Amino acid sequence: MPKISSKGVNMPSSPIRKLVPFADQAKREGKKIYHLNIGQPDIETPEGMLNAIKNIDFKVWAYTHSEGIPSYREKLAGYYQKVGFNIDASNIIVTTGGSEAITIAVNACLNPGDEVIIPEPFYANYNGFTCMADVVIKPIVSSIDTGFALPPIEEFEKVIGPKTKAIMICNPNNPTGYLYSRAELEALKVLALKHDLFIFSDEAYREFCYDGKEFISPMHLEGLEENVIVLDTVSKRYSACGARLGALITKNKEVLAAALKFAQARLSPPGVAQIAGEAAIDTPDSYFEAVNKEYTERRDLVVSALNKMDGVFCPNPGGAFYAVVRLPIDDSDKFCQWMLESFSYKGQTVMMAPATGFYSTPGAGKNEVRIAYVLKKEDLAAAMECLEQALKQYASL
Amino acid sequence: MPKISSKGVNMPSSPIRKLVPFADQAKREGKKIYHLNIGQPDIETPEGMLNAIKNIDFKVWAYTHSEGIPSYREKLAGYYQKVGFNIDASNIIVTTGGSEAITIAVNACLNPGDEVIIPEPFYANYNGFTCMADVVIKPIVSSIDTGFALPPIEEFEKVIGPKTKAIMICNPNNPTGYLYSRAELEALKVLALKHDLFIFSDEAYREFCYDGKEFISPMHLEGLEENVIVLDTVSKRYSACGARLGALITKNKEVLAAALKFAQARLSPPGVAQIAGEAAIDTPDSYFEAVNKEYTERRDLVVSALNKMDGVFCPNPGGAFYAVVRLPIDDSDKFCQWMLESFSYKGQTVMMAPATGFYSTPGAGKNEVRIAYVLKKEDLAAAMECLEQALKQYASL
Repeated sequence: MPKISSKGVNMPSSPIRKLVPFADQAKREGKKIYHLNIGQPDIETPEGMLNAIKNIDFKVWAYTHSEGIPSYREKLAGYYQKVGFNIDASNIIVTTGGSEAITIAVNACLNPGDEVIIPEPFYANYNGFTCMADVVIKPIVSSIDTGFALPPIEEFEKVIGPKTKAIMICNPNNPTGYLYSRAELEALKVLALKHDLFIFSDEAYREFCYDGKEFISPMHLEGLEENVIVLDTVSKRYSACGARLGALITKNKEVLAAALKFAQARLSPPGVAQIAGEAAIDTPDSYFEAVNKEYTERRDLVVSALNKMDGVFCPNPGGAFYAVVRLPIDDSDKFCQWMLESFSYKGQTVMMAPATGFYSTPGAGKNEVRIAYVLKKEDLAAAMECLEQALKQYASL
Repeated sequence: MPKISSKGVNMPSSPIRKLVPFADQAKREGKKIYHLNIGQPDIETPEGMLNAIKNIDFKVWAYTHSEGIPSYREKLAGYYQKVGFNIDASNIIVTTGGSEAITIAVNACLNPGDEVIIPEPFYANYNGFTCMADVVIKPIVSSIDTGFALPPIEEFEKVIGPKTKAIMICNPNNPTGYLYSRAELEALKVLALKHDLFIFSDEAYREFCYDGKEFISPMHLEGLEENVIVLDTVSKRYSACGARLGALITKNKEVLAAALKFAQARLSPPGVAQIAGEAAIDTPDSYFEAVNKEYTERRDLVVSALNKMDGVFCPNPGGAFYAVVRLPIDDSDKFCQWMLESFSYKGQTVMMAPATGFYSTPGAGKNEVRIAYVLKKEDLAAAMECLEQALKQYASL
């Protein structure tokens, strides 16, 4: 029998995957589960986007250009100009989700064995994308005590070596919800220029910034034109995760040329999604205002409920729809499994993501979980009540 | 300025890409171009598939399961059972086009430096997928004089070494249109079992077999359960290239488990495409009968016209909608460019793919082109007339 590859063996599983059988069992037992474990928002996709799908009028569902439909790229360029990026359509390669934008960027820029520095906790799938490219992640720990702010630049300097080729950030951050400040990004800029590093900026949650805080991208900073590669997706912006539509944006012509070759190999991004994506750009501001208001309220509800619980600490996230929370527990994997397997309160329980999956430093995240506040407020309130009861019961075990 | 990776530098371009500026210029000059250069069929997508898109009724365009929507996988399993595969839904991972099925299979099965044997000429993007995975293609030349039949097994044996992990075939073949016989596949089976090799079977053109010839897959052969990985797509079957919907099918549990982890990393395949793909499985037989009749007539027209031209030889392809043709020319890249740049007949010209892009043996394919007979018959007839005139004029240069 032929053997699979080392990558096939070592490719990491989703950190939530091992909880799925316990969730399935809990459902079979009739428990109601509040799913705070995944970033699948319940927010409705804009009507204009859905109508664009319903109104398709082609007879042949054909390949599009590998770099995306020209009219979509043009319109998308307009969107990015509004966001303050000094780019045009030629700086955009349309991708199959943000996932493919990341895969292409990593492969186009890093050789096997090269290193990318990522503040941790970080989006767990970065492990998968780097595993596929044989690239090494060098994590720098950001601390819950500072609200997961960018670690001091000295910490980056310590791990920079001859193999270091890039820094990857996710802003606003998944899993922490932290929103990087201009000062933090300026510090990264100095570092990237000093060491000739790419900055991969995963901006999936760009639209989700709260309390009037400004979103700043490395793409906004002068002098970083050759270094910055923005990795984007429509998934969260328009609650259209199933569209699988993203983009890679850079002013670096060499990266663009290389990325185009990767894009050509897979022929084209999804066709209907691009038509819908083009329509989505006309989504009225009122949609985003309503969504922002809703998420702010959800965040306030969750963060305040959490911080009222004994021994619980949750920094107030400035963006995205996640929070990493410190709980009075010994082992978040065990605790999250226990909540599905052995706990219920009024026939209900909560599914959360153990934070261990977002750290690559062994042992880190053992007393933390990630909560995605993607449910309506009454469900979030019930979930928080449930979690509070669970913590009490768990403490007395 | 940070440097891109070696992969970014070495990633191959599409073999047709270098002709695009000449085609654009020809269009600007008002020339009509018959595009026989790409596998984008003009056949209409089945109505049921398009209606499924128009009738979507979700409010949130959500992620699907990483391995595909359960109901789609079930129905797809039924389709494969009809094709004679002894599999169920658990043997299927739904992918983003056939391209992703290939990428996942190569990464899950081969380590960097490992070798895959591929009869050449072969689909040019195999170069890209293997470049991404740092895998080495060992080509075995199949000859136009035998109609591109499978090369003798001794030729495979000659290149098999400790790094050989797989054989890749495309059946019916792109670019040659050759349809492998049961005897040829049985010979590959013996070889694969003897050397413990995976067989990657790219079956994008399964529905396109002519003259009543039977389609045989390595999946039909007993004893190959652990070796065969079928790579599939709905692109050609339903003329739905823009759907970006494919599948990886195998009975090998280790490969399935590894493939699922790659699938999880990119979250999910396109959502609307899966809904449409599920509807497509109900496409009536009459659709395929009409398509088959149309392509048979197109093939007959093209092959007979070609073989009447002086010094031209075109084997009669048993499947797909391509033919590799030997022309009385010195350099197919030069000739194809010349046809766009310097030739016209009644204000028309033909764009074809130089066969050099489908060979990795240096110098091979210099007097061959690939023709995709994806236009209606009157256009194909005009294109053939045009090509005949071009060859006469080229000979007299």
